[in-house]
Amino acid sequence: MQERKLDPLGVPGPRGAARPGAEDESRPRRSGRVTAPERWVGRKLLEALGRPPLALMLWNGEEIACEGRGVVGRLRIHDRGALYRLLSRPGLEFGDLYAAGRVEVEGELPGILEAVYRSIGAGGGPGRPTRFARRLRRPPRAQTLLRSRRNIHHHYDIGNEFYELWLDAEAMQYTCAYFPLATLSLEEAQRAKLRHVCRKLELRPGESVVEAGSGWGGLTCHMAREHGVTVRAYNTSREQVAHSRERALREGLAGRVEFVEDDYRNIRGEYDVFVSVGMLEHVGPARYRQLGEVIHRSLKPRGRGLLHSIGRNRPAPLNPWIRKRIFPGAYPPTLGEMSEIFEPRAFSVLDVENLRLHYARTLEYWLERYEGQTERVRAMFDERFVRAWRLYLAGSVAAFRSGTLQLFQILFTRPDNNDLPWSRAHLYDRSE
Amino acid sequence: MQERKLDPLGVPGPRGAARPGAEDESRPRRSGRVTAPERWVGRKLLEALGRPPLALMLWNGEEIACEGRGVVGRLRIHDRGALYRLLSRPGLEFGDLYAAGRVEVEGELPGILEAVYRSIGAGGGPGRPTRFARRLRRPPRAQTLLRSRRNIHHHYDIGNEFYELWLDAEAMQYTCAYFPLATLSLEEAQRAKLRHVCRKLELRPGESVVEAGSGWGGLTCHMAREHGVTVRAYNTSREQVAHSRERALREGLAGRVEFVEDDYRNIRGEYDVFVSVGMLEHVGPARYRQLGEVIHRSLKPRGRGLLHSIGRNRPAPLNPWIRKRIFPGAYPPTLGEMSEIFEPRAFSVLDVENLRLHYARTLEYWLERYEGQTERVRAMFDERFVRAWRLYLAGSVAAFRSGTLQLFQILFTRPDNNDLPWSRAHLYDRSE
Repeated sequence: MQERKLDPLGVPGPRGAARPGAEDESRPRRSGRVTAPERWVGRKLLEALGRPPLALMLWNGEEIACEGRGVVGRLRIHDRGALYRLLSRPGLEFGDLYAAGRVEVEGELPGILEAVYRSIGAGGGPGRPTRFARRLRRPPRAQTLLRSRRNIHHHYDIGNEFYELWLDAEAMQYTCAYFPLATLSLEEAQRAKLRHVCRKLELRPGESVVEAGSGWGGLTCHMAREHGVTVRAYNTSREQVAHSRERALREGLAGRVEFVEDDYRNIRGEYDVFVSVGMLEHVGPARYRQLGEVIHRSLKPRGRGLLHSIGRNRPAPLNPWIRKRIFPGAYPPTLGEMSEIFEPRAFSVLDVENLRLHYARTLEYWLERYEGQTERVRAMFDERFVRAWRLYLAGSVAAFRSGTLQLFQILFTRPDNNDLPWSRAHLYDRSE
Repeated sequence: MQERKLDPLGVPGPRGAARPGAEDESRPRRSGRVTAPERWVGRKLLEALGRPPLALMLWNGEEIACEGRGVVGRLRIHDRGALYRLLSRPGLEFGDLYAAGRVEVEGELPGILEAVYRSIGAGGGPGRPTRFARRLRRPPRAQTLLRSRRNIHHHYDIGNEFYELWLDAEAMQYTCAYFPLATLSLEEAQRAKLRHVCRKLELRPGESVVEAGSGWGGLTCHMAREHGVTVRAYNTSREQVAHSRERALREGLAGRVEFVEDDYRNIRGEYDVFVSVGMLEHVGPARYRQLGEVIHRSLKPRGRGLLHSIGRNRPAPLNPWIRKRIFPGAYPPTLGEMSEIFEPRAFSVLDVENLRLHYARTLEYWLERYEGQTERVRAMFDERFVRAWRLYLAGSVAAFRSGTLQLFQILFTRPDNNDLPWSRAHLYDRSE
């Protein structure tokens, strides 16, 4: 596939090399002896990270660690340029330096990143952020249709075969699974997630559903097949839409599901149910009100809906490296920020469930499978890509484990819909 | 008790009479013939209410109704002064005129009020409110300790015997019950609510709990008795605290529960759990951040908490008559407004449940019992009080049925608490 030849990280390097000398970024360098100022920079770096239980090992083998802290892992910094870049913009530079192999981690990567997240979090004050922090926290610009499409293309159109290597085999769900029991397999938990979402929505045969952002069509086909509803799914990722249409055809559902390669803002028609699993992260807060209007005009008078999204406890953008290299334009909202979707049209929020630890578990599975497939990933892309995606997956495990990220499922309905179950017990009925 | 002699409605009338001629407000008056401008005013009034399925019957027996609408009930307006007052400030004047008997309702009161709420709600636009609506929606002023205390005294210190007439007999809970089955009795449903709250909080023997706003001590004693925790409960209502202390003594719990007659802002100490059922309505949005700080300093590192509060889908104050006569200073927040409590200290919201229809059912029970006790209420207060509280209870049934008010239970914890159940199934375990 030609798409594989695009540079999915947008990093100058062996493949996307644009500036002279860039290629030697990909291998560790020795930079000779360590000076006193460099030791000082190392200590500053650890302080800026909230004194994590981590040792820095510099290019000459010398170690720096915070006094009185145990050490769960070691960060090897192979050259002095890497050290200075880390201090200047750690959130951004660490990812690029790790991907290039100029920084390496000794120890269990998710655990070490979790320790860093926790030490940064522990220093977090009451919400009188510094000007620097406020600038960091500024939400991204409003997304035009074109920018949204480019952002989605950047992440999701790098080859379905790549995602097939490590997502669940059954429905290729690239969103948080649901583990009613911690011991479920990834496939079982992704199946349980589909059931959980559909139970919350109380789908009835013959109803119409509109889906905003449909991935590889796993939920779309499940709803049509198991609940006898018709689904129109909107998705701007060309590769995902192509894959989804094939799936629907294969499953004999072509008459009941329709995949529209278009933006959620172009949704037309009226439906009983609005569902969106893992798209809100790409919408951006400047468009929440508009999303609410789209839901308002798409829902019938007694309509109901569900949003499933990565979120935050307090407003903050994603890590800058993730935003730059992995998910351009993405933003995980707080529940307060999401209220811009619901409140202007007085949607009634019925149920919010936080599945944070379920996403940590899901990501552990993905990371484990990914690690078993790195040779094939290297053949599809290159070593830098292998390392970057390892860091992204391990960092996401750490972010959900440490409470830096949340996962919210929000069930809502029109304000005057009284056709509601008396409790949520039906979500936990084991007789099925 | 002396408190019974205070004027609990603050209305000039037979008991609180302050201005001459006020006493004749309490009986219907005939105002002679109806003029064309008065008919116009009647039609305008119906239009202002969103054309509800309601007929106005004027003092001469003449009826006005909206064309093409069925009629579910009749509003009898006994004099022309009442008609003009209704048009000028319907939300405020209707209550006083109804309490005074100058306006009467023929038909089922909650059903008729629900129809009015629905017709007003149906006219609600997207959230570009008029200047008038914005002024109406302005949240109340920040509450000083003194004003809070006065507001609480106004509502809760009018006599425990009064509340005993119509609240559940077991725990005197003046908050939304929980009906896992719609057929439960009030006592069963209030017991189920206590269990539901405690299951969400996963109380463990020996843990410490702080309760903000504790009513007549029903939850306080339940937690200590059933879960072996110690509870310190803060409450500014003198009568409630006195009643609660007696209850604890009677139940042999005096060593494990403590009732502090003080404001939530004066909570001291550190606890495993923070719980507040039915107090947030009295806090006011200007104090949400401060409440969050109180929770922050009261909770241990892995602490968790639950807030249970009346709420809204979109920001709006309570009905002005309710604010003036029944609940001074009260304000039902949206989830977005509540985020001011949680986000500054990065509390992690784990679970939000909307129990709106459960509050409608609870209020139906209260209203039914109240109607069976009106002779005793009249003896305690007067006819105006009997009518005012009938309207308040019936209007609340209508507000929850129509979706004008919501009831939110919000479970939260410190951001790095990973000691969480894998699902909410334990809330629905029937084996207990």
